[in-house]
Amino acid sequence: MAIPCPPLIRSEKLSIESGARSPSSPSPLILTQDELKKIAAYKAVEFVQSGMVLGLGTGSTAKHAVDRIADLLHQGKLKNIIGIPTSKKTHQQAESLGIPLSDLDSHPVVDLAIDGADEVDSNLNLVKGRGGSLLREKMIESACKKFIVIVDESKLVAHVGASGAMPVEVVPFCWKFTQDRLQSLFDYAGCVAKLRTNNAGEDGEIFVTDNRNYIVDLFFKKDIGDLKVASDAILRLAGVVEHGMFLDMATTVIVAGEIGITIKNK
Amino acid sequence: MAIPCPPLIRSEKLSIESGARSPSSPSPLILTQDELKKIAAYKAVEFVQSGMVLGLGTGSTAKHAVDRIADLLHQGKLKNIIGIPTSKKTHQQAESLGIPLSDLDSHPVVDLAIDGADEVDSNLNLVKGRGGSLLREKMIESACKKFIVIVDESKLVAHVGASGAMPVEVVPFCWKFTQDRLQSLFDYAGCVAKLRTNNAGEDGEIFVTDNRNYIVDLFFKKDIGDLKVASDAILRLAGVVEHGMFLDMATTVIVAGEIGITIKNK
Repeated sequence: MAIPCPPLIRSEKLSIESGARSPSSPSPLILTQDELKKIAAYKAVEFVQSGMVLGLGTGSTAKHAVDRIADLLHQGKLKNIIGIPTSKKTHQQAESLGIPLSDLDSHPVVDLAIDGADEVDSNLNLVKGRGGSLLREKMIESACKKFIVIVDESKLVAHVGASGAMPVEVVPFCWKFTQDRLQSLFDYAGCVAKLRTNNAGEDGEIFVTDNRNYIVDLFFKKDIGDLKVASDAILRLAGVVEHGMFLDMATTVIVAGEIGITIKNK
Repeated sequence: MAIPCPPLIRSEKLSIESGARSPSSPSPLILTQDELKKIAAYKAVEFVQSGMVLGLGTGSTAKHAVDRIADLLHQGKLKNIIGIPTSKKTHQQAESLGIPLSDLDSHPVVDLAIDGADEVDSNLNLVKGRGGSLLREKMIESACKKFIVIVDESKLVAHVGASGAMPVEVVPFCWKFTQDRLQSLFDYAGCVAKLRTNNAGEDGEIFVTDNRNYIVDLFFKKDIGDLKVASDAILRLAGVVEHGMFLDMATTVIVAGEIGITIKNK
């Protein structure tokens, strides 16, 4: 479903920034990427109902959704929400905003999760984890009745890996060996595998996940083909903990772009 | 290939204990389980040649093989061996015995690995990890040209899980949730999933692997059927790091039993 714009974008933007509409300013608005993220996030939060157990995503887009949920709680427009944070960072954010929190052990069924993504393909398959969170997100979002993904339009891709890395979480033990096996697995797609560091340099400190593992980023020159086959091949490598492809998981994707909000349902 | 006994068993046993044969004692020998393990281990070490990169297994049977390799190195009968230990424990043992050690990052191709197993089925599929090591073993043993498994005859089973637990290494984060999903996956086989602790009691300290993960032991009442299907289903669960089924990996299994040594090749 495509919602026409520019009026909607303008009103969404203004409602975000001031809570009021301004029909007297007809000139086109140039929205920043962060404003688009916020629009998608606020749209997603419209699906939240009181009493829900909510998966709280991680990253710059999901952060807006968590902020919005906290606002609605404080305004009394939402009640009895239980949040399940998908990372330590989101846990801290949600806790500081006063959102009641729990975990999957206590709440194994999640009503709705809202999270961003690094890539969305035409079948609503996702790449996630460029920010470093993927395992906890995947655990929580695979336990959801509904999973709404919120992105700006720059995240739409023709195929997985088209815009950058597909991250794989690996155990630290002999990570080079695992990195080489991952690269070999996708030789046919011109894969280059790189251990993630905390800065761009080769000698940077190794990035460590919330689960004390490492991330190997896979860069593909070509489409890797059947994603389920690729997923199983990666998971069969001893040393791999999880990968950043979220296949058949998103039930709704909300895309905010210059031409308006598009809602895609599975 | 079945090698006839009892003469062989007796000679193997005596060669282990004293290095000499004793044809003057014709009475049947009752061998302990540990003696059978030692016989299988010594037989496997006959396949080791100077210059090899060797995967060194973990557990009570593999320990005998590591001891034997060290003996042969010290006797000068083996030279230029590089050992790749499959656990911290084996690393300590091999280091204390003076075996030169390396790892998969430096030696990604392993000529031969020798290791025990908790179960061996008729297709030479294994269950490993009841002692707590499975991930590092699987990484190393999947990088081997040859993988010799050494067991006493009590480890032969009709199907995977027939004699006890099939261990699964999981991330500590929300382990209960993962445990429940694992149990549900094998509902059809009457599965009971239990977190491993350091003692038998329910309130025991949680067992932690070399990779700082937990182990969920799966107990099956029935045959779980197609093992590759089961393997992929387990690995697809976010939160699972690895499982203890080693499928299509063993190239040779050496079984020591009261009726002799049996060598099974893939």
